[in-house]
This record gives sequence, C-alpha cells and structure tokens, in this order.
Amino acid sequence: MEQGIFITFEGVDGAGKSTHAHLLAARLQAKGVPTCLTREPGGTALAEKIRHLLLYTGEVKLAPATEVLLYAASRAQHVNEVIRPALARGEVVICERFIDSSLAYQGFASGNKVEMVRQVNYYATDGLVPALTFLLDLDTTEGWRRIQERSESVAADRIEAKGLSFQEKVRQGYLQLAASERERIQLLNCSGCTKDELHQRIWTLFLEKFPTVLPRNEQVKGGCS
Amino acid sequence: MEQGIFITFEGVDGAGKSTHAHLLAARLQAKGVPTCLTREPGGTALAEKIRHLLLYTGEVKLAPATEVLLYAASRAQHVNEVIRPALARGEVVICERFIDSSLAYQGFASGNKVEMVRQVNYYATDGLVPALTFLLDLDTTEGWRRIQERSESVAADRIEAKGLSFQEKVRQGYLQLAASERERIQLLNCSGCTKDELHQRIWTLFLEKFPTVLPRNEQVKGGCS
Repeated sequence: MEQGIFITFEGVDGAGKSTHAHLLAARLQAKGVPTCLTREPGGTALAEKIRHLLLYTGEVKLAPATEVLLYAASRAQHVNEVIRPALARGEVVICERFIDSSLAYQGFASGNKVEMVRQVNYYATDGLVPALTFLLDLDTTEGWRRIQERSESVAADRIEAKGLSFQEKVRQGYLQLAASERERIQLLNCSGCTKDELHQRIWTLFLEKFPTVLPRNEQVKGGCS
Repeated sequence: MEQGIFITFEGVDGAGKSTHAHLLAARLQAKGVPTCLTREPGGTALAEKIRHLLLYTGEVKLAPATEVLLYAASRAQHVNEVIRPALARGEVVICERFIDSSLAYQGFASGNKVEMVRQVNYYATDGLVPALTFLLDLDTTEGWRRIQERSESVAADRIEAKGLSFQEKVRQGYLQLAASERERIQLLNCSGCTKDELHQRIWTLFLEKFPTVLPRNEQVKGGCS
C-alpha cells in the first residue's frame, strides 16, 4: 500500500506547529528526501471552500455535529487528493493538524462524544493514522502571548471568541491523547527552549523512528548533524 | 422528547415525491394540523451552500467519503435547525428525502459500505428515524420519461451523467431497504395509478398509522374523506 511516511504536528494555537513543520520539511528536502508539506483545515480547493463555510456562517449557528462532519469531509478530500497520493509516491508527508485536532477541539473541548468524532474521522480517512505525531505542548497563556505578538488574526479571533478556558480544555484533551498513545504521539514541552533546540529534538526523534529515511550517504551524518 | 410526527418521502427521480409530499401537507393543513414541509438536500441556508459545493466541484473529483460526509453535514444542520424544532412544537414534519436517500444513492448504488453510511448518518441525526416513510417505486425507464416531460434539469443532468443503470441500482437499494424495514417503510407502486389514487392511498395509510392526528371533530370524516 503506502510506501511513504505520514507525520503530523499538533498543538494549541501559538505552539509553533507551522514553524516546526516547515523546518523539518526543509531539512528533509535539503537531504534529498521527497517531502510533501500540507495543512488542515484546507489542503485542497474544496477544503478551502469548506473552511470558508465554517468561518463565515453569518447568523447561523452551526450544530456541533455539522461542524464535526464538515471538518471530516474536508479531511476526506485532503486524504484522497493529497496525502495518499504523496504516500503512494513514497514521500514523507508532513501535515499540520489532523484527526487529533478534531478529537481535541471538537471532542474533548467542545463536548462532542470523542468516540463518535473518532469513528466519523476513521470513515473519512479510511483508517489512515500518522506513523508519528509531534504534539507541541505549551502553557495556554504563553500560547496566547505568542499569538498576540504574531498578530495572527484567525487564531486570535478564535481565542477571543472562545476564551482561554477553551484553549486549556483543548490542551488537556491533547495531553489525554498523548497519554493513551505514547508510541505514536511524541509530547514535546515547548516552554523554555529555543526554536533551534526544539527543532533539533524533533529531527533526532524523527531519525530514531525512521533511521533509513535519508539517502545512504547521509545516514551516518544524519544521526548527529 | 419530540411530540410531533416525522414522515419522509423517498424514491428515484421522477417518482413523484415532491407532488405527494405537497398534497399530504396541504391536506393536513386544511384539516388544521400544524405541518412543516421540507426537503433534502437543502432545507437550511448552510445546506444550500453545501449543495452548491456538491454540484459545482469544477474539475475536482469528490472522494466518495467526502460526498457522504457533506450530505451528512447538511442533514445534521437540517435536523437541528428545522426538523427537531418543528417536532418539538408538535408539528407533522414531512421531508422529501432523508437517510434512506443516502443509503440508496451513496451506499447501494455508489459502492460505499452501506453500514458506514448508516453510522455516519446516525451520528449526523443523533439517531432520528422517521416514524413512517413512503417509498414511491417506479420502473426506472418510466421515471426517466417523466423527468424528460417535466424538463427538471438537475434530475435530468444527474441521470444523464450516471446513466439509467445507476438509477436502477438506486431503485434496487430502496427495495432492499423496504424489505428490511417493513414496519417503517410503506412501499407504493406508482405505475398504473393516477396521482389522485396514489394520494388517497397515502392519506389512508397515514391515518391508519396515526389515527389521532386530526382534530377530534375531523377524525371520523378523516378516515373516509
């Protein structure tokens, strides 16, 4: 079936998912490893349209199940149109946010039944599970400070609308997921370490898990570069 | 919980769902029964936007799971925004197409696993099942003839795109559903009877199932009017 490797980055807004997904992808590409960098929600033209529906509902209040199903529909298209084809080509696919985001945000933090969210997403992805997930964990107030510094309006709007207590529920949901899937989910504490230090930990963990992913002439160097 | 009565009309394009849903609703309203007439796909502003996504995908081919999940998202919103509130007000809700359409079209006829389509929709509707479903059954070529007469472009486009063999698979899917749920699904053969005859059968079956739905002074008349 799939020949490639599927990696995801997860965490609350402000944790650095985008930064570290880009750094990992760039390093792999520099080593000659075919890499596909993508993100959710979005990743396809249809998913962008669905994202627009989710953001601009006007006065309509979305039912919780509607939201879960729209995210899942978007994910189904992303998996079929982008992720599986890249895996079939043997690429390393690095995706910002995936099912764990739905479990944390729509499940744990919003009060939908986590097991139902999982089942709907299992259907959406036909059972695709990341081989490795980096969960970037950060104190909720620190995440909020970082968001404000960056003036990321979408994330800032969401936090302002739902409050920091919602972010904390998301974080606790992520931590529960990490506790229940230690083999897959690498929990990384992002407080008190520099961007370079964190990237180096991610790189080392990645190579420990996939020691043969680099071209042969890079494999010795790879472990300690 | 719900005080009202939830009724659906199902069947292939051209079978007369819309006509008979309107006739039943009009007759109930004339007897003073609060009635809500609605339809899928659609029924809410969000559902109309989703319907637009489903119809106008441009060059993008929707993954089968994406399609199932988009219909389910639309249905979740419809149930929460329209159907459940009307049932809570004690109305008779008459809906053209509901879960059985997804089972017949996306399940039986399109090759998605019927049980998965059922589970996703169970989640979308939080287990809402019609109390009575009228399945209008019609020979596939006869349905096609009627569609052409009416120049219903959406239905005609769909049949032309997918072919009559697809319509026949939908029909066979419906018949399987009817065979497995005889208590809920009333199978009505629409060939060789007039619109008025069919409406009278629907009216009689409805009153047999819900003998106390009419105001008390109408109940004797109701059975034989």
